[in-house]
Amino acid sequence: MSSPDGFDRLRFDAAGLIPAVIQQFDTREVLMVGWMDAEAVRRTAATGRTTFWSRSRQEYWVKGETSGHHQHVQQVLVDCDADTLLVLVDQVGPACHTGTHSCFEHGEIKVTA
Amino acid sequence: MSSPDGFDRLRFDAAGLIPAVIQQFDTREVLMVGWMDAEAVRRTAATGRTTFWSRSRQEYWVKGETSGHHQHVQQVLVDCDADTLLVLVDQVGPACHTGTHSCFEHGEIKVTA
Repeated sequence: MSSPDGFDRLRFDAAGLIPAVIQQFDTREVLMVGWMDAEAVRRTAATGRTTFWSRSRQEYWVKGETSGHHQHVQQVLVDCDADTLLVLVDQVGPACHTGTHSCFEHGEIKVTA
Repeated sequence: MSSPDGFDRLRFDAAGLIPAVIQQFDTREVLMVGWMDAEAVRRTAATGRTTFWSRSRQEYWVKGETSGHHQHVQQVLVDCDADTLLVLVDQVGPACHTGTHSCFEHGEIKVTA
């Protein structure tokens, strides 16, 4: 790691973003995937609340800002290529804006093998 | 869901790709994140082995093809926006090409809050 805080080695995509997988720290449930730019990563680390960049609205959003369903950040891990984050959180209430606990309760691709 | 197999509703990005979070089905460890195009999703579902699109090499790769470290697919879940997949697998050997079990053992962003 080239810097003590790990920021310098992160590799953002052409749009300046990095995907962040959000996982409940104790049950290990994968809750959602959001996108962060460098500033959103900094805010997440500095505030202990996940902050994302909304690609559709082109603005920052703090998870739970309106719903109260915050994600308290426990740990932010970087993958081998430094182009993906795994954020361990303690989720307050449902993670999904639809009201389901995880965002991955909305369908399935049938595996036929 | 608009089709029995779930393909029709998937939303790919401008490059025709969708991120796939790969999770060990029983321990719930997040192993890696890879990218799939529509054909890679079809091959993954049809063969029961994860198939990705390599953005750097611009070619399909079957996880474990050279290393033997296959991922046997148990379930492919779609998120609320249909733009991310969560693939539950049974991982043979280490998931990371560096030899670590997960790709997320390569650094950490310090949370200062």
